[in-house]
Amino acid sequence: MITKAQVKHIQSLDDKKYRHEHGQFVVEGDKMVTELLSSDLNIIELYALEEWFKSNDIRDKKTTLIPVQPFELERISSLTTPNKVLAIASMPVWPSSIATLAILLDGIQDPGNLGSIIRIADWYAIDTVYCSENSADAFNAKVIQASMGSVFRIRVEKCDLIHLIKLNSDMPSYVTVLEGKDINLFSKITRGFIIIGNESKGVREEIKNLSHHKISIKRKGLAESLNAAVATGIICHCMLS
Amino acid sequence: MITKAQVKHIQSLDDKKYRHEHGQFVVEGDKMVTELLSSDLNIIELYALEEWFKSNDIRDKKTTLIPVQPFELERISSLTTPNKVLAIASMPVWPSSIATLAILLDGIQDPGNLGSIIRIADWYAIDTVYCSENSADAFNAKVIQASMGSVFRIRVEKCDLIHLIKLNSDMPSYVTVLEGKDINLFSKITRGFIIIGNESKGVREEIKNLSHHKISIKRKGLAESLNAAVATGIICHCMLS
Repeated sequence: MITKAQVKHIQSLDDKKYRHEHGQFVVEGDKMVTELLSSDLNIIELYALEEWFKSNDIRDKKTTLIPVQPFELERISSLTTPNKVLAIASMPVWPSSIATLAILLDGIQDPGNLGSIIRIADWYAIDTVYCSENSADAFNAKVIQASMGSVFRIRVEKCDLIHLIKLNSDMPSYVTVLEGKDINLFSKITRGFIIIGNESKGVREEIKNLSHHKISIKRKGLAESLNAAVATGIICHCMLS
Repeated sequence: MITKAQVKHIQSLDDKKYRHEHGQFVVEGDKMVTELLSSDLNIIELYALEEWFKSNDIRDKKTTLIPVQPFELERISSLTTPNKVLAIASMPVWPSSIATLAILLDGIQDPGNLGSIIRIADWYAIDTVYCSENSADAFNAKVIQASMGSVFRIRVEKCDLIHLIKLNSDMPSYVTVLEGKDINLFSKITRGFIIIGNESKGVREEIKNLSHHKISIKRKGLAESLNAAVATGIICHCMLS
């Protein structure tokens, strides 16, 4: 049986402000919770149906197990079709050192794009994604889902990108613009900042001016632009693989 | 003033079945309608606020103009914040010849992914996207939005992919799998079928077996997979650019 206070707490974590105040976030569904269990993150509480506990071995995990009935899961779930299990986890604490290879996102606001980009970072072994303050929140349910759990492994940090670039001016920086040097002409890199801009406005002028290299994906057809996550994938592949 | 029948007709076009029965679809918002106006598609009706008509020159367009009040636009719009204009367009009629360079999508069900992939096709000058019958509908509002209007220029056709590949067995076919030959080792192509699979299940076995080349994007980190649209972008870039 879950209490009213538990329901209220879980629902409040839908809100970015409360998530960051409590340093906690919600993970839903069998697939995502399995990813969470295999990560190093601290799981505070695990609400699951009896059938889920039966088919998952979680004896080694330090967490509070709370068996729930389907109607209770429905009350705490934000999914239209609740999926067996819901976990509350602590937000990761990352080292404060500056990453030597990172993706910098200037105003990525679509949660699906942010999640896909975190997944790209995880695929190409880029351990950090720095986001400007106006970017989507990494612990938003849609971001977690789109990242397919990569957000449990990748450091995603909000910061003042201009400050970050200025403080690390020796770090090669590559900013994606519409009219830059063809990405195919660059050699592979092992360190640097790869900078991607907002879905419609691109990267801020000040960041463009601070960056060492302006890079572009050459267009052969008529589309005005590529989706931000797609562009990030192409650039990471060309520069790192 | 718009009639009840008009409202009903526009709302019915939310449904895939009605769209295809009528051969019509809805385009909403200033940006998307501007893209539609610059395409070759036939626009049947244009519902817009007075201010929109004033700032857009559409004298050359053969279409029925219907000025509406904000409250009327709200009634016909499927957006939470209706955006000045809504158009009904005829679905394009494409040549029946087989494309010599095409993306084949086996069960892409997320409208955002389908839209992003149509935009990738438009970026790399691939004029056709063939989709399996269980793929999302190209004239779904979310697909149109994610394609950023590329769906007005690119032929998107549902068909039996297995039949298509068998009938065109001389066409080089490249199927994306997790354990295939590194995409970086392939030469550029100018003709062929690039085959992408469902977001979670990948490409059907039968299609894999029919294909000439199994290709992969090599992973350096820990993510289990890439988003389907991101993977399509990387593959198209590597093979075409």
